[in-house]
Amino acid sequence: METLVPRSRRARPAKAPLSREAVVAAGLEILAAEGLAAVTMRRVAEALDTGPASLYVYVTNSQELHRALLDAVIGQVPVLEPDPARWREQLVELVLEWLRTLDRYPGIARVALADIPTGANGLRAVETLLGLLRAGGVPDLAAAWGADALSLHVTGNAAERSIQAERGWSDAEGRAYHEDLQRTLEGLPAETHPNIAALLPFLVAGDGEQRFRFGIDVLLNGMLHTPAPGPATGLEP
Amino acid sequence: METLVPRSRRARPAKAPLSREAVVAAGLEILAAEGLAAVTMRRVAEALDTGPASLYVYVTNSQELHRALLDAVIGQVPVLEPDPARWREQLVELVLEWLRTLDRYPGIARVALADIPTGANGLRAVETLLGLLRAGGVPDLAAAWGADALSLHVTGNAAERSIQAERGWSDAEGRAYHEDLQRTLEGLPAETHPNIAALLPFLVAGDGEQRFRFGIDVLLNGMLHTPAPGPATGLEP
Repeated sequence: METLVPRSRRARPAKAPLSREAVVAAGLEILAAEGLAAVTMRRVAEALDTGPASLYVYVTNSQELHRALLDAVIGQVPVLEPDPARWREQLVELVLEWLRTLDRYPGIARVALADIPTGANGLRAVETLLGLLRAGGVPDLAAAWGADALSLHVTGNAAERSIQAERGWSDAEGRAYHEDLQRTLEGLPAETHPNIAALLPFLVAGDGEQRFRFGIDVLLNGMLHTPAPGPATGLEP
Repeated sequence: METLVPRSRRARPAKAPLSREAVVAAGLEILAAEGLAAVTMRRVAEALDTGPASLYVYVTNSQELHRALLDAVIGQVPVLEPDPARWREQLVELVLEWLRTLDRYPGIARVALADIPTGANGLRAVETLLGLLRAGGVPDLAAAWGADALSLHVTGNAAERSIQAERGWSDAEGRAYHEDLQRTLEGLPAETHPNIAALLPFLVAGDGEQRFRFGIDVLLNGMLHTPAPGPATGLEP
């Protein structure tokens, strides 16, 4: 029988060296599993088997950590080779992938709402988006400002969904919520709410992805049909 | 000299009777002054000089309290008498007032992102919005689903602004943030980011309200120019 001699600490496997990449990777894992609120400097340090003070070389505070995670998440959106002939199809695909990627990391959309992403991946995504809009003949101001409105459509939708995910709603609870809403709308008298009553079949039709896609189409068609407010911007048309 | 006899508790001014209205009014005051995170059942109870347990008759938990506050906030958006001839002007005014009202209550936009407002004031606002869209000739499906996209444009913008307000950013800090962003964009080489370089004057032009208004125009023009995806919705056109 082996004697129970305590093993030396030195015999433990060596810790992976700390780096910004290691910090971000550990943060992403916690984010995917538990949502943004769980991603603190302390939790990430624990996951890396170190103390919070050791992280400050790589990220100065949790706000910077969250921004770094946002850029890493955007980096997971597949890069596409723009093809001007298929600009619209590619743009819809890009935006849908962007939403799906945000959906995998509950709460990260709130960071995108608070801060314009200015990391390398965020800037690459904006560059691709603007390129596709220009390929589609969207005028310059409409492309620049429309890209903002399109980003907000994505991050706002993702934030909506992630608030519900963070509440821990099951699919059944999500459905119950929508059934409740439908009953409320159906119960409104046409005398007081004639427009809701008239549009009822449309208000309750479609699922989240159909509505999201329709919103993208509305934004793209609107960008193609909205003249620039020249003088108001200080940019003569 | 008066003797220092403790005054009877009965001599204190009578407390205002508790009611759902009193709870909501106290909550609104805390919300306006300190933002959503401060609006807990405990804080509202303290403001009403009572215990949290006394509130549960009126609102069952903080989530219901927040929803009640959202509806009260929406109730502060001025009611307008729809005039079909001025539908577009009225719609823009309604949406701007809605944004300004949300801006006065930092954080409430997050509640609007998480839950479709189904209180009396929320439903009245939806009714007015749908009425104006129909008066403008927006087709039924585009009005129903477009109203969603328009609401998200408002609440998403308000959430963006309120996250910054809740961080306690001064105007100077907000400006510094935008100047940083501008420098980042200006510093990108045209070789790697040709579209950002080409659109730079447009990307940095305009203020928040101009961009917000442009987004409303894009959405309205898009609703007028986007055919309903008939078969996909189960609604034959």
